[in-house]
Amino acid sequence: MILTLKTGVSKKDVQKIISKIKEIGYKPSVSAGAERIVIGVIGEKAILHKDTFEAFDAVEMVTAISKPYKLVSREFKKENSVFTIGKNLKVGGKQIVIIGGPCSVDTRENLLLNAREVKKAGGTILRGGAFKPRSSPYAFQGLGEKALQMLAEARKATGLPIITEVMDPRQVQMVCRYADILQIGARNAQNFDLLKEVGMTKKPVVLKRGMSTTIEEWLMAAEYIISRDNHQVILCERGIRTFETATRNTLDLSAVPVVKHLSHLPIFVDPSHGVGVRDYIGPMARAAVAAGADGIMLETHPHPAEALSDAHQALLPSQFGHIVKEMRAVAEAIGRTI
Amino acid sequence: MILTLKTGVSKKDVQKIISKIKEIGYKPSVSAGAERIVIGVIGEKAILHKDTFEAFDAVEMVTAISKPYKLVSREFKKENSVFTIGKNLKVGGKQIVIIGGPCSVDTRENLLLNAREVKKAGGTILRGGAFKPRSSPYAFQGLGEKALQMLAEARKATGLPIITEVMDPRQVQMVCRYADILQIGARNAQNFDLLKEVGMTKKPVVLKRGMSTTIEEWLMAAEYIISRDNHQVILCERGIRTFETATRNTLDLSAVPVVKHLSHLPIFVDPSHGVGVRDYIGPMARAAVAAGADGIMLETHPHPAEALSDAHQALLPSQFGHIVKEMRAVAEAIGRTI
Amino acid sequence: MILTLKTGVSKKDVQKIISKIKEIGYKPSVSAGAERIVIGVIGEKAILHKDTFEAFDAVEMVTAISKPYKLVSREFKKENSVFTIGKNLKVGGKQIVIIGGPCSVDTRENLLLNAREVKKAGGTILRGGAFKPRSSPYAFQGLGEKALQMLAEARKATGLPIITEVMDPRQVQMVCRYADILQIGARNAQNFDLLKEVGMTKKPVVLKRGMSTTIEEWLMAAEYIISRDNHQVILCERGIRTFETATRNTLDLSAVPVVKHLSHLPIFVDPSHGVGVRDYIGPMARAAVAAGADGIMLETHPHPAEALSDAHQALLPSQFGHIVKEMRAVAEAIGRTI
Amino acid sequence: MILTLKTGVSKKDVQKIISKIKEIGYKPSVSAGAERIVIGVIGEKAILHKDTFEAFDAVEMVTAISKPYKLVSREFKKENSVFTIGKNLKVGGKQIVIIGGPCSVDTRENLLLNAREVKKAGGTILRGGAFKPRSSPYAFQGLGEKALQMLAEARKATGLPIITEVMDPRQVQMVCRYADILQIGARNAQNFDLLKEVGMTKKPVVLKRGMSTTIEEWLMAAEYIISRDNHQVILCERGIRTFETATRNTLDLSAVPVVKHLSHLPIFVDPSHGVGVRDYIGPMARAAVAAGADGIMLETHPHPAEALSDAHQALLPSQFGHIVKEMRAVAEAIGRTI
Repeated sequence: MILTLKTGVSKKDVQKIISKIKEIGYKPSVSAGAERIVIGVIGEKAILHKDTFEAFDAVEMVTAISKPYKLVSREFKKENSVFTIGKNLKVGGKQIVIIGGPCSVDTRENLLLNAREVKKAGGTILRGGAFKPRSSPYAFQGLGEKALQMLAEARKATGLPIITEVMDPRQVQMVCRYADILQIGARNAQNFDLLKEVGMTKKPVVLKRGMSTTIEEWLMAAEYIISRDNHQVILCERGIRTFETATRNTLDLSAVPVVKHLSHLPIFVDPSHGVGVRDYIGPMARAAVAAGADGIMLETHPHPAEALSDAHQALLPSQFGHIVKEMRAVAEAIGRTI
Repeated sequence: MILTLKTGVSKKDVQKIISKIKEIGYKPSVSAGAERIVIGVIGEKAILHKDTFEAFDAVEMVTAISKPYKLVSREFKKENSVFTIGKNLKVGGKQIVIIGGPCSVDTRENLLLNAREVKKAGGTILRGGAFKPRSSPYAFQGLGEKALQMLAEARKATGLPIITEVMDPRQVQMVCRYADILQIGARNAQNFDLLKEVGMTKKPVVLKRGMSTTIEEWLMAAEYIISRDNHQVILCERGIRTFETATRNTLDLSAVPVVKHLSHLPIFVDPSHGVGVRDYIGPMARAAVAAGADGIMLETHPHPAEALSDAHQALLPSQFGHIVKEMRAVAEAIGRTI
Repeated sequence: MILTLKTGVSKKDVQKIISKIKEIGYKPSVSAGAERIVIGVIGEKAILHKDTFEAFDAVEMVTAISKPYKLVSREFKKENSVFTIGKNLKVGGKQIVIIGGPCSVDTRENLLLNAREVKKAGGTILRGGAFKPRSSPYAFQGLGEKALQMLAEARKATGLPIITEVMDPRQVQMVCRYADILQIGARNAQNFDLLKEVGMTKKPVVLKRGMSTTIEEWLMAAEYIISRDNHQVILCERGIRTFETATRNTLDLSAVPVVKHLSHLPIFVDPSHGVGVRDYIGPMARAAVAAGADGIMLETHPHPAEALSDAHQALLPSQFGHIVKEMRAVAEAIGRTI
Repeated sequence: MILTLKTGVSKKDVQKIISKIKEIGYKPSVSAGAERIVIGVIGEKAILHKDTFEAFDAVEMVTAISKPYKLVSREFKKENSVFTIGKNLKVGGKQIVIIGGPCSVDTRENLLLNAREVKKAGGTILRGGAFKPRSSPYAFQGLGEKALQMLAEARKATGLPIITEVMDPRQVQMVCRYADILQIGARNAQNFDLLKEVGMTKKPVVLKRGMSTTIEEWLMAAEYIISRDNHQVILCERGIRTFETATRNTLDLSAVPVVKHLSHLPIFVDPSHGVGVRDYIGPMARAAVAAGADGIMLETHPHPAEALSDAHQALLPSQFGHIVKEMRAVAEAIGRTI
């Protein structure tokens, strides 16, 4: 950690800061530049004392040198993390996994048809919302446990492992009885009590990036889960909020190489939420594969006009099949498989 | 709700949409423009069927005409909402309330000293964090119930009502036993299960705006609480996330007149989190009063270098007292009191 | 154009608006909904009168139905625009063009070496800055005409057409004497006098997106050029400004399918400026190809440590060659060539 | 300037960097931390060599210690800059100046009436657009020199000094013949050739902040003007672009105390463009005064429905007069005058 002092600070101010550094067990390294004094605070986890030094009026700026996360970092673990989902699906390896299914589960018939179509087209995981975070209290909030039962039935029928969102720490146990993978949605990306709760389960967790979460904060959210001893965390980029309104969000595909550089965790991309318009999903799904994503999440529905949420971005089975083929060609061009 | 169709859609497509409108009980109003056909969907809550129409390939854009919220709206209730906090403190009226206290409660001595100084300087509510949403799992997470007990003691000593954050639906009952006002933090602004839970209490709730929550989404989050029959909701602007890094967040003071225009609810401003730098808090607190805020939240600490979080923005008692005086002069200039 | 009125407006207010619509030659279409009155303004270019209606106090919101641009739109011209650069390089067709070269031209030796390496690796256009828009007045501002002469020499030596930025309307004539393609930089994306000036030349123009320019505004900037009768406009996505600081900008690859949907113009992507970090350029270049870009701009330098600007993102010739190979594989997977 | 190296770099890499530092005339200061090596580069203007060091693969991050601007900084000049406009209007002192007038000049009658009303209500400067930067090439572009002549006539009639925008370096001489103050608009905030050109005049310049310009970049744009020896620069906050759409832009009032802290230059606020909705302008004008602004720019029009641009935000003379009274009360509360 580096402390940049204001110009013209007194010797006494500098001395006070140096004393504080020693008092909390670190080593000061003072360097007087042309205009300002800069003090290094040397020792492990110095950054946890950021607040202490920001409180000094003589300090202009505190700069972190070490990363604020540890267990998720590439420095902690050099090789990519690879997890097994369900019986033998590997996530984080050479194969790129494809997740299809509805935004929210509506009827048993639609779900079973959807699941079969997803499987037929090459999908490897089934998604479906049982608890839905909706902006309006008057909008459809999901079918709850009934939806989880239908998902379990669809898994039985197709063999596809299932992923579903959990929103409330009180639901975690129950959702774990049905789901193969837990999903934390964008609005709960920094719901720390929920992160701690899923960190105490044995289920893989897909952690979506919050709408205005920096990559560093996102990795620290993952650290919340891993530090509770659940190491099976998969990050998922789903678009950030910017000034642009032509798309629902701005899909930040550069998050893929950045996360790969900073962390050993697998990363998925959800182009459906990223762009929010059916016509733009195919190109962005291909681009996500080319950027290095380990999995692609897509919303599908056999009858979009009956969908109870996000109908504008739901793909028909035929569209989904077409996109999977395109993604496969790109995957092979970069030495991976689908 | 208005549906703008793509150019060159077929008569059959238009007919299908019209049938759907009638099927779900609304009245279509078709208008053929120079280049495009536009269809109005007339009837209450039409916007809840947005998804249904977005699913049609012939629909280019769906535009809402009515607001998606109701109980929070100025149209629902013309006059300003005024609540009584504690014995007789009015929120939302002519008097602007002033909240002071630490970011997080650390020691009993610091808290009691802080509370007395806040009261002496003209503060009317005491704030203090017991459960802290921290980006890092390794940072101080708050003292929990112990902190709530200290807050209750400080209330007894000074008569100031207390406000504290609740992060987890499982804590709501317990926090209600101590606090006069519940606070929902920015990271939980769209934690809908938590909103539902505080909506079932009888306590006033300060709902902070999320870092990337639009004003419309924020009002809908308030609607979650009110629709569960807790009408005592106070909004609190605390800065949004933008590209600018000179301040911790960008304090969006225009949210004050916008909320006053759209809603009858009181609105507070938190300049401490908004700017995150001690020197900028005074001018922004004065500006918030001038913009029409009903309350100002400020972080204070008798010894900032001992603060366990947000030390960079904590005001000394003397600084707090000075800012309260400045705010009072501005309040009087616009016909209000502090 | 649709006018949504405030709730509770008087009949007299409605009548005034209707009179105004007729006065300026349009047809009103009134529709009384459950809560509000909505008035359609029917006729060509109604949106140019947006201001007139926003001035009425009774009007809550004005919604555009038609696009505010025309000549650039896909509706105006169905098929993709294809231009010929230099002797026979086609832009906008099946072949994806690859632009390489330095951020700013420094020495003749470096430039010639760079140009030869770009050509050898499969590059089809040479880039190089002569006039540089630098944030600081004390930073290197480019070599001016001397750099243009060196670029012309490098073209002669390699046969590669050259592209260079023009910043000032007074330079346009001179730059046209050397360059094959003019570039408008991000900071000048809405420098309308400059756009008009390049609109009066016969040179193809690459129009970079501004840091906070919406796609609609960007298309209207292109309309400025085309409406002066220069139809050879190529758009170039180079990253937008967001809250994320892990990358220099946020490369908005979804702009590629959106532009392809709305316009017939070719679109390039500049991953070098988009991410600003050498290690992330390769994955994003591949992703841009997969998303459907018609050209990729990359910064290359034989000795990055000698570069006078943007050294952090300059690729070595060997890195450039490697990325071109990867892009070619992806291009072939989606039925295009490099 | 501080170089943070990657973890695990070789001694040879460190040595190369140290050699480079010495080669360009600076002093290295090496500090080996728990995990990383950090090297200080000591000497004036080291930051101008940022590129050189970012080019080294072993360098993870380059952190500036000194500010990248000089002449505009508070460190360069401690006391506030105060300029005289016209005969004896002081800008930057105790008096807050009030600018009123139309977005764009339309008719002589409207302008003269407007100017008289602005003066009567307490305005001290007249604004009016002659050259208008419009998003659409088909929208009204301003009356040009004819508008400047009308402005000069209005000055004669009222004694108010006039401010008008200049968009093109080729117009600067001509605009100088009429205007008392030159305005650089938000879209040209980083049009460096234009900044250089106005830097060579003797006229005061109001430099609006760009829509996505950081405060640091904005101060560097001001440095462009001052370094050409025109010291009379006034900054003007007019809203930045964010995700929020309830207002036209997000007025960043915290820019006022930040600029006051970093620079000696006066700062104005333009709430009309900041919020873009008539009803919100009054509260934000009061807030801007309370935050410490040295001047407030407002758009006024005697007949908003006839305005050729920005009608939605134009104030009637009576509304303007009312807002000036409110601002005066707030100004007096903080020890200033209007």
